Amino acid sequence: MKQPQYGRFLDDFHIGDIYHHPWEVTIDDGMLAMFAGSFLDPNPLYSSSRFARDLGFRDRVVHPLVMLNLALSFTVHDVSEQAIAHLAYIDLKFPNAAYSGDTFSVYSEILGARVSESKPDRGVVHLRTTGINQDGIVLVTFERKALIPTGTLVGRAHPEIRHVTNKDEAGGGAVGSGSDGKHRLDSVLPVLPAELAGEIKVPRWPGRPLGCFEDFSVGDVILHSSGHTVGESEHMQLTLLTRNSHPLHFDEVYCRDRSFAKTRVVEGGLVFAWAASLASRDTTANALWEIGYDKGSHSAPVLAGDTLYAASQVLDKRDHNLGSGIVRFKLLGVKNEFPAGLLKRGINLFEGKFEQKVFEIERDVLLAKNPLNRRH
Amino acid sequence: MKQPQYGRFLDDFHIGDIYHHPWEVTIDDGMLAMFAGSFLDPNPLYSSSRFARDLGFRDRVVHPLVMLNLALSFTVHDVSEQAIAHLAYIDLKFPNAAYSGDTFSVYSEILGARVSESKPDRGVVHLRTTGINQDGIVLVTFERKALIPTGTLVGRAHPEIRHVTNKDEAGGGAVGSGSDGKHRLDSVLPVLPAELAGEIKVPRWPGRPLGCFEDFSVGDVILHSSGHTVGESEHMQLTLLTRNSHPLHFDEVYCRDRSFAKTRVVEGGLVFAWAASLASRDTTANALWEIGYDKGSHSAPVLAGDTLYAASQVLDKRDHNLGSGIVRFKLLGVKNEFPAGLLKRGINLFEGKFEQKVFEIERDVLLAKNPLNRRH
Amino acid sequence: MKQPQYGRFLDDFHIGDIYHHPWEVTIDDGMLAMFAGSFLDPNPLYSSSRFARDLGFRDRVVHPLVMLNLALSFTVHDVSEQAIAHLAYIDLKFPNAAYSGDTFSVYSEILGARVSESKPDRGVVHLRTTGINQDGIVLVTFERKALIPTGTLVGRAHPEIRHVTNKDEAGGGAVGSGSDGKHRLDSVLPVLPAELAGEIKVPRWPGRPLGCFEDFSVGDVILHSSGHTVGESEHMQLTLLTRNSHPLHFDEVYCRDRSFAKTRVVEGGLVFAWAASLASRDTTANALWEIGYDKGSHSAPVLAGDTLYAASQVLDKRDHNLGSGIVRFKLLGVKNEFPAGLLKRGINLFEGKFEQKVFEIERDVLLAKNPLNRRH
Repeated sequence: MKQPQYGRFLDDFHIGDIYHHPWEVTIDDGMLAMFAGSFLDPNPLYSSSRFARDLGFRDRVVHPLVMLNLALSFTVHDVSEQAIAHLAYIDLKFPNAAYSGDTFSVYSEILGARVSESKPDRGVVHLRTTGINQDGIVLVTFERKALIPTGTLVGRAHPEIRHVTNKDEAGGGAVGSGSDGKHRLDSVLPVLPAELAGEIKVPRWPGRPLGCFEDFSVGDVILHSSGHTVGESEHMQLTLLTRNSHPLHFDEVYCRDRSFAKTRVVEGGLVFAWAASLASRDTTANALWEIGYDKGSHSAPVLAGDTLYAASQVLDKRDHNLGSGIVRFKLLGVKNEFPAGLLKRGINLFEGKFEQKVFEIERDVLLAKNPLNRRH
Repeated sequence: MKQPQYGRFLDDFHIGDIYHHPWEVTIDDGMLAMFAGSFLDPNPLYSSSRFARDLGFRDRVVHPLVMLNLALSFTVHDVSEQAIAHLAYIDLKFPNAAYSGDTFSVYSEILGARVSESKPDRGVVHLRTTGINQDGIVLVTFERKALIPTGTLVGRAHPEIRHVTNKDEAGGGAVGSGSDGKHRLDSVLPVLPAELAGEIKVPRWPGRPLGCFEDFSVGDVILHSSGHTVGESEHMQLTLLTRNSHPLHFDEVYCRDRSFAKTRVVEGGLVFAWAASLASRDTTANALWEIGYDKGSHSAPVLAGDTLYAASQVLDKRDHNLGSGIVRFKLLGVKNEFPAGLLKRGINLFEGKFEQKVFEIERDVLLAKNPLNRRH
Repeated sequence: MKQPQYGRFLDDFHIGDIYHHPWEVTIDDGMLAMFAGSFLDPNPLYSSSRFARDLGFRDRVVHPLVMLNLALSFTVHDVSEQAIAHLAYIDLKFPNAAYSGDTFSVYSEILGARVSESKPDRGVVHLRTTGINQDGIVLVTFERKALIPTGTLVGRAHPEIRHVTNKDEAGGGAVGSGSDGKHRLDSVLPVLPAELAGEIKVPRWPGRPLGCFEDFSVGDVILHSSGHTVGESEHMQLTLLTRNSHPLHFDEVYCRDRSFAKTRVVEGGLVFAWAASLASRDTTANALWEIGYDKGSHSAPVLAGDTLYAASQVLDKRDHNLGSGIVRFKLLGVKNEFPAGLLKRGINLFEGKFEQKVFEIERDVLLAKNPLNRRH
């Protein structure tokens, strides 16, 4: 009798191991529609073939948070199917545009695996994950940390690890070889796709909303009015669509005994995407690229039926070229109370912990300048 | 600190203003599948590339109620995100076929904005909305009325209105210039796409069900046996997929205080689409075109968990050409009770109000004649 | 006043009748994504265009259980919309690959219709169903049995049956003419698509998981750890997406009085697909083809909120060619308890009935041999 198990316990991880995750998925328009049915984002770069082509891309670009969710979920089978919690997002970048029709696969390199000093039954695994298309072009890369029980997983049904000695085989030499285990929290190098390398001419867009580069000032706090109540089927469908195999998200019998919340918990990557989408009309409608996310973490679980809200703070901004500039935002996700209500009750939204806070991250966004200003 | 708000209050509307709504969306097969997962419709014009091509179209045609839902939802950001209720559908037409791959955008012209005489805290906004593809071809156009609070919206985060002086710029001269503020309730001019302009040869369809032009007689009442219980995730996903941004449909915290139903309410355009799809096997399986809808209104809210039913009445019919004729139906939507049960309790389904009634509209449908009859 | 009814009662069926079911549907990427959002399957044949092409197919292959669900659901309108229960799956085969873009239609031949001896108010209808693409190529074929009330359906809104005298007209001569009413339970002839007719060279797949032909031994019992809690919207969306028109699955008002479970019941074809997908990581990640399913039946209903699990038993295995072999599995579906827990309580999972058992079937799978072994 066999009971195959997936994921790993802490002692199963070895620094330098590279896992080629089993999922290989052709991204399609169905996937984009299912994300569009949950994450309202006005940016036509992701929704309009016409706009994206006029901007210089081959077609509308797959939303970066679809790519993050796919890559994160693909790793679960090998890395975190036994994990207690997902701890941190570090140095998340989208070096090239992803398109519907691309066949996506993902590999991860173990950067660290360390037993907790205070709780020796668990430890932190640190890894860099990289997602590539059928030509080996890197579409997304990030580091993350997860909390994993110590010990060795019995019944582990994985193939043996094939160590990749020549990094080029992994399909992403430059990025792979940069995974040196050092956090790159202070990375400010914009990583832009080739299509945006030169001067940028923002295409005509009759319904263009507010929110160009000029509209943001350092220190601005924006309380986003949009909320989203998470549907039960909705979050399970998105979790499985991205091939996340952790039972915490879709197996209620497992969760009764083994979930810290005693019920199914919404996948972290989706909470991240909801925070970003709830902020999108006020901040990134005119984004030309998500340059990178960093210092991201989840501070409380989200369950089906919870209502999510978001707030943003402008941390920094600097000019990029004639048509665009970079704004650094802090993005916050909270649940079940309007950000304005929290603020009124004296809570400092962007510092420290509070009960309603579920997520925070920093992001660098390349924003179009207002094309009307360029004529003055 | 900013709290950007969308939609408008009554005093923000000015007759003649044209809003170019911000959403620009390439319609894709994913969108069609998500609609097919909620709205059962046997008409192969919308589901079969083979059939649609044999009829003369380039590909299967996007379901007209997908187009209505997209166009209606696109307007919410500018028009009705603060609305109390959606009041009426007027003169809804589908002048050209929409296809998967079309990039869809929408603009609206304000035809009226009038304070209520009985309740001066609200008023009625009347507008014509037009949806076009990437070539400016009009795919859908309709007028609607919405109930909006009086006053001016504070924190409104819209771009300035750019008045379109040359109507051609709006991409739909003929239709735009016809928006003269007069209701065209009595319009009976069939608006058919070019593909159906001449004689129509209905393609072979081995499984063709009953319901050709000859099968309907003026005065017929049809109680449709199909019902549909609305799923919580289901209606929210469809609402966001079409880019409807009114929190009434997907933000439970907002709804607790601000929804007239104290909970999330199903979007009207979806209720419309359910009524039509529940009637489809009995009435429009052999439809060649939805010529137009008119005199539509919602009479009660629908919530997740409600079960919808439909009934139809044949108001009129007339010959069109050798292969087709036009039938005018009244379409009724009710909730939580079979139409037959309501009738048994003495309720006049097609006149006046009753508790279970949620929707009514009139429609002109171009129906194929029975190809077997043509040989006699 | 008309109240059109669909499906048939027992006396409406006549041996030899052929129904061309009305649904004609172009399979699209949206449909594939919606299935991927519920049924986690690592096999890249169904998800990766790159892998499928390298194996010799034109594109990624539509998952066989999508095809089963479409074909089964298409028949409901004519066959089982009034059925009490679906009883059995017999001789289910997938003779050719289905692709996104294929236009799918289905016909069924009545093989038997017999009143129950113990309960004369009902009887068993036995039929063979065949699904074809736009070129008449058979994509799926199976027999099934359903329990149907005796009598004649009043208000039946079907077209007259057009008897197909020349079987070739039905688009699938070979299969149609083989539908002679004899069960073919013992069929062991592998039915493989032309692409797999010769020697098979399994494409490179960096993340290839365990579970090649060599890894299974006759008698093996595999308790799959994956579970799936069925979402309410989720199962209704998939039911309608496949055009299943039985109100048992999506009409709560109907179900209150007329469902044996007093509420909506999850469609059997979906339970089948969940059992197979929950087993997929442990058994069919390396499958090259689903040769056939047989002796399938449902033993208890599944409701929204139930959690499904699966177990497999290796019944037989035999060599096929240099690159592949055939494994016969028994596949079991249970609800709301881990298979391991049931076993611990002394339940014989693969024999007889027990409360948690919802589904069983036998399957022949063509499995790749481990490419690494071939070098030795």
